Amino acid sequence: AATFRASDHQHVRYNPLQDEWVLVSAHRMKRPWQGQVEPQLLETVPRHDPLNPLCPGATRANGEVNPHYDGTFLFDNDFPALQPDAPSPGPSDHPLFQAEAARGVCKVMCFHPWSDVTLPLMSVPEIRAVVDAWASVTEELGAQYPWVQIFENKGAMMGCSNPHPHCQIWASSFLPNVVQREERSQRAYQCQHGEPLLMEYSCQELLRKERLVLTSEHWLVLVPFWAVWPYQTLLLPRRHVRRLPELTPPERDDLASIMKKLLTKYDNLFETSFPYSMGWHGAPTGSEAGANWDHWQLHAHYYPPLLRSATVRKFMVGYEMLAQAQRDLTPEQAAEKLRALPEVHYRLAQK
Amino acid sequence: AATFRASDHQHVRYNPLQDEWVLVSAHRMKRPWQGQVEPQLLETVPRHDPLNPLCPGATRANGEVNPHYDGTFLFDNDFPALQPDAPSPGPSDHPLFQAEAARGVCKVMCFHPWSDVTLPLMSVPEIRAVVDAWASVTEELGAQYPWVQIFENKGAMMGCSNPHPHCQIWASSFLPNVVQREERSQRAYQCQHGEPLLMEYSCQELLRKERLVLTSEHWLVLVPFWAVWPYQTLLLPRRHVRRLPELTPPERDDLASIMKKLLTKYDNLFETSFPYSMGWHGAPTGSEAGANWDHWQLHAHYYPPLLRSATVRKFMVGYEMLAQAQRDLTPEQAAEKLRALPEVHYRLAQK
Ligand SMILES: O=P(O)(O)O[C@H]1O[C@H](CO)[C@@H](O)[C@H](O)[C@H]1O
Ligand SMILES: O=P(O)(O)O[C@H]1O[C@H](CO)[C@@H](O)[C@H](O)[C@H]1O
Repeated sequence: AATFRASDHQHVRYNPLQDEWVLVSAHRMKRPWQGQVEPQLLETVPRHDPLNPLCPGATRANGEVNPHYDGTFLFDNDFPALQPDAPSPGPSDHPLFQAEAARGVCKVMCFHPWSDVTLPLMSVPEIRAVVDAWASVTEELGAQYPWVQIFENKGAMMGCSNPHPHCQIWASSFLPNVVQREERSQRAYQCQHGEPLLMEYSCQELLRKERLVLTSEHWLVLVPFWAVWPYQTLLLPRRHVRRLPELTPPERDDLASIMKKLLTKYDNLFETSFPYSMGWHGAPTGSEAGANWDHWQLHAHYYPPLLRSATVRKFMVGYEMLAQAQRDLTPEQAAEKLRALPEVHYRLAQK
Repeated sequence: AATFRASDHQHVRYNPLQDEWVLVSAHRMKRPWQGQVEPQLLETVPRHDPLNPLCPGATRANGEVNPHYDGTFLFDNDFPALQPDAPSPGPSDHPLFQAEAARGVCKVMCFHPWSDVTLPLMSVPEIRAVVDAWASVTEELGAQYPWVQIFENKGAMMGCSNPHPHCQIWASSFLPNVVQREERSQRAYQCQHGEPLLMEYSCQELLRKERLVLTSEHWLVLVPFWAVWPYQTLLLPRRHVRRLPELTPPERDDLASIMKKLLTKYDNLFETSFPYSMGWHGAPTGSEAGANWDHWQLHAHYYPPLLRSATVRKFMVGYEMLAQAQRDLTPEQAAEKLRALPEVHYRLAQK
């Protein structure tokens, strides 16, 4: 029998946060691609467009006029999936027909007054302002809601309907599915091993090194052992931190700096404004915020779809939807590629 | 407080097969769409292209020449994610770094010798031949493997790299994640209630009617109470059937006929060749096939991405990837729309 090599031999890997498996078939990268090619990006976003509802001074769908903001800007989503006051569907009459009340708030946060920048093209102090705004909104909405989901959909490929740099915040009266699974896994790990799952995981990755992308005084970025998306990464503080508002000023500065480096590498990978969805997970908030959540470690997930080039993505379809996620290069190969990329943005280097 | 109306008031619904929840926010359909619009379909697929590796008589990547087949045609995938003989990664040295062996076979099945047809444009006897081929391949690969996943990715939007009508079959040495959850849920339901989950669910849907799309002597199609994709459906036999090969000849004919009707409705919805991923789930096979799997009921899931038109899809991104699936119309609204559509294909009606 041949000796096992992860880059040649298909295998499954376990995701201990979601309690599920991923099929790794790195030899699949050899197949030719004849499928859908994504439209190339229009690089001609105007810096200011008075008709874009995210721009300073623009009028939004509800008639409100945006202030002439010059940093970050937070406002209520005009088409919220969650509203504070929906009535309850009432008791279910059958175990296979269960519905429950869902309440919440949806906000939008602009990162910058200009439409033609993205986080990696912003300065470290500008990104630091975004980090501070994330911490504040977590604190503000977390006073009332058990879960505050901060997420960024970047790029048309990720369903983002507006090129202006922004993220969304959806706070809910319930713990969403993905979070419930992370809660269960982290709690069980702490019970069994006496330490937070992601603290031990960080330690191990710092020793093993092969999946590290970036390290700094307070943070690390790695391609998780169980990554599903080709260039998926996990961003973690080195210290045990449960939620964004707990971060100290030096940790926030350092976060801004490592985010700029990571997102620059992403853009440099295929010399394009790299699409992704990203989001933060920390300990639950709301009325139970004071309970013991020591098994939680703050982290951000980055899920970028591109696989081979700026226009060829990984499709999570058929087998993935009906059976199990499958990836076409190993997490170690992805980390190696990302590590090797320059920390200067290709658009600035060319100037 | 207002009276609850599912079409006006957001709520969460429970998916008893996957043991997770979906956020239903039907009022979101009111928001304008400014995001990515999918490329319109090229309707000019040639009936026969000697360079298309799926066509009769064409040469494939491995040098083999396809026979001049005139019905369905099954062959080995030239770029398989699963191969029969991969070595094992060996024992894991840490609970957070678990890898295991994965073995299997990947096949491709052409539905028809012509590249310019799709299932709804094929005749009922031609579709019946596909049903028979599905049953045979399940039997053949199920003799060795515990799971045989039949799935079809249709349309470029679903990562399908070849317009020729075909599906794939991936058989594996393991039960994939989605299947493990269905196994757990169906087993638990049978233990607690003494009957198969999906048998009771079908009964209830036949009584409640509001989510039914099509019914026939042996089959039903409905939009599940917990549907995630806008026009997602579930196709089920009325009789308790565990696996495809158990279907009788009249059940197979009737399946071909109801599939033609469903897929015709799908194409008619936005007057386009409707993209989707679909796949079959039945009781596990392999060496444990003889065990008691009575809690399983055979079914097919259809997951189509389109939301508003032939070019505007639902994106499962940001909140969906980080937190929980969210849908923009109720399953009852979707079922009503599908029910109202004609059973004659728009391309044939125009002739
Ligand atoms: O094998 P294909 O059709 O080239 O590939 C397609 O289906 C596979 C199974 O769903 C996916 O893993 C791929 O991402 C997708 O592009
Ligand atoms: O709110 P947006 O940006 O218009 O919408 C986008 O993000 C949402 C949250 O991830 C998704 O539910 C939508 O499908 C997507 O198009």
